Amino acid sequence: MKQIKGGICAPLGFAAAGIYSGVKKSGRKDLSLIFSEKPAILAAVFTTNQVKAAPILVSQENARAGLAQAIIANSGNANCATGKRGLRDAKTMVRETASALGIDPRLVLVTSTGSIGKPLEMSKIVPGIQTLAKTLSRQGGGAAADAILTTDTFRKEIALEVEVSGKKFRIAGIAKGSGMIHPNMATMHAFITTDAAISRLLFQQMLRAAVAETFNMVSVDREMSTNDCVFALANGVSGVKIGLTGEAVVKFAEAMRAVCIYLAKAIARDGEGATKLVEIKVKGARHPKEARAAARWIAGSDLVCAAFYGGDPNFGRIVAALGASGASFDPDKIAVKIQDVLLVRGGCGLPQNMGRAAKQLKAKEIKVEINLNAGRAEAVAWGCDLSYDYVKINAKYHT
Amino acid sequence: MKQIKGGICAPLGFAAAGIYSGVKKSGRKDLSLIFSEKPAILAAVFTTNQVKAAPILVSQENARAGLAQAIIANSGNANCATGKRGLRDAKTMVRETASALGIDPRLVLVTSTGSIGKPLEMSKIVPGIQTLAKTLSRQGGGAAADAILTTDTFRKEIALEVEVSGKKFRIAGIAKGSGMIHPNMATMHAFITTDAAISRLLFQQMLRAAVAETFNMVSVDREMSTNDCVFALANGVSGVKIGLTGEAVVKFAEAMRAVCIYLAKAIARDGEGATKLVEIKVKGARHPKEARAAARWIAGSDLVCAAFYGGDPNFGRIVAALGASGASFDPDKIAVKIQDVLLVRGGCGLPQNMGRAAKQLKAKEIKVEINLNAGRAEAVAWGCDLSYDYVKINAKYHT
Repeated sequence: MKQIKGGICAPLGFAAAGIYSGVKKSGRKDLSLIFSEKPAILAAVFTTNQVKAAPILVSQENARAGLAQAIIANSGNANCATGKRGLRDAKTMVRETASALGIDPRLVLVTSTGSIGKPLEMSKIVPGIQTLAKTLSRQGGGAAADAILTTDTFRKEIALEVEVSGKKFRIAGIAKGSGMIHPNMATMHAFITTDAAISRLLFQQMLRAAVAETFNMVSVDREMSTNDCVFALANGVSGVKIGLTGEAVVKFAEAMRAVCIYLAKAIARDGEGATKLVEIKVKGARHPKEARAAARWIAGSDLVCAAFYGGDPNFGRIVAALGASGASFDPDKIAVKIQDVLLVRGGCGLPQNMGRAAKQLKAKEIKVEINLNAGRAEAVAWGCDLSYDYVKINAKYHT
Repeated sequence: MKQIKGGICAPLGFAAAGIYSGVKKSGRKDLSLIFSEKPAILAAVFTTNQVKAAPILVSQENARAGLAQAIIANSGNANCATGKRGLRDAKTMVRETASALGIDPRLVLVTSTGSIGKPLEMSKIVPGIQTLAKTLSRQGGGAAADAILTTDTFRKEIALEVEVSGKKFRIAGIAKGSGMIHPNMATMHAFITTDAAISRLLFQQMLRAAVAETFNMVSVDREMSTNDCVFALANGVSGVKIGLTGEAVVKFAEAMRAVCIYLAKAIARDGEGATKLVEIKVKGARHPKEARAAARWIAGSDLVCAAFYGGDPNFGRIVAALGASGASFDPDKIAVKIQDVLLVRGGCGLPQNMGRAAKQLKAKEIKVEINLNAGRAEAVAWGCDLSYDYVKINAKYHT
């Protein structure tokens, strides 16, 4: 497995484009198209927020058949809480994309991200779709990755090449963060492409498993979005078949997980206002669910994350968040390490080690390891520190 | 029902004191004593955090008998994650208080609040208890209210006098906030005194009901503390008996709720870094539980609260938080008002009203009203805006 260039167009048979259509006030790219030269097997997960944006409802419908050939995605406006007009606009995006590409509209997925509650400016989006269809190319992966971003500060893309029995397949992904990040059973926007051939059932299972351990383990602010989704397209162009057993399926699962972990960590690292990536590992839990719940609850804790911003190894806040996370454990048995410095042993704080831990907190990546000593399950979650800029971005800036 | 002076010593038969014992680096008062001249009926609720501080464990034990005569409370150190030594220290606080007052140690409750994980400095606390016992007076309510504060910026106390059939009883309370505020089945510190006579069962039921609708409806940061507790003492000195039926019980319940609401709102208003009090009302829910969950989840939302700090009537974030709150509703039927300006109707945003709403957001008290149009239950929750100072307080300052 090696990292290669080309982003989501690195897998064979994919093209992409990203442009500025006029939706974002900032003048940054805001409309993105990903295209597979032939209909691809689709795996998809969607937000479990009870309020779902119009494009999510339209894409859920189109995703049922398990095939897709294009993703049209705009940023700057979430097309959520927009009523019937919003649904009509999402369907228009699908229809216009299908017509510009000469494909069946049922093979088009649509997503939106940005601020909630304002109608999409279709007078800008529709001509934008025409332009996108004309500029589609194998070099367009980077532009497509840029055009899905909102408050993100950097592009999130990765491509991997994997060799199986002398043949090669590729898998790649792009994603956007970076506020309203506490996905549940689904995630923020992430689009994955691969030229491997795989059955829909297996692909969907693998995506769900990878998402549970990666995107769903990121928390910036305990806020779940109305527009979260992950789409994965497998077009089979490489000729590498992923069966139910054997070397190929193991390598494919590994590669898919690697793509998701890379993107999930990039989202955490680029959380709104973030200056540090925070990794929370919970070991010794009774059940994987409890390990995941505890790790993610701590990763999203304002108090823990503000302490890390201030360079304060405040293990007490970690212990308090742990106790509120829903995981079951004996408080007198827990251990907490920050950057390998032991700060809680047998439930009891070791304040004498705080000076040493504080020095280690100057690093850009903070690792916390918690042992519940209650079982064998473990999980890792990612988040970021809570800085003044999180407040600034969300108080003063409007998308 | 009228508001009177005297804080928790306004009810007859109570005395209090608050001093600086030396625990807080700031030099502010940090040790508080409340005393009833005779054993009082006790109602109590405790944090449901799995990690409970040593004084909570000790007070839970002492609360079982349903009688109490004194509360000893320190601030600046939570005596949590302090192992066996912590338990020993909490018991010493109880014993020293009982001995200084000449009462049974089983009638003493102990609480601590402040930073987690460091042993209590008993060499300061023990002499402090001696001093407190000597300075107890009916004028000491304010000092006692001050000595339980941590990052709070103002004293939280209230006293009410209620007339029933020509006789008068009094009920009063003090509380502390102001970070790690998202109590569950319990609350931050609040101590309530009354000179009414009431059975333990009725008192406990009333306290639980009042707490559910008041302290448990405050969220500053979705963080649950390890040291939350509410103690209520009824010593009967006024001679007014609260029976199971009649005018007295109705008036007593009303007064108790008024004390709790006043203190809960004071805690929200004084949330760390707060510049505005935020009140979230959820109507039309299927079940009171869902109304409460939705209201409180929104009150604790970083994104909603940062928007209010910035004066942005960002109804989209309210809708997204609502969808993640666990309440069940039809997204196409919800309505959202901020300061009486309708911003969502039938699930659809009304961005044209945002300018008018933005002007109203300059007020010091923000009211949000959400109608789920799914049933008849309703609830109110309180929080505050999220400012730079929340981050500053929690990143840079150590208690």
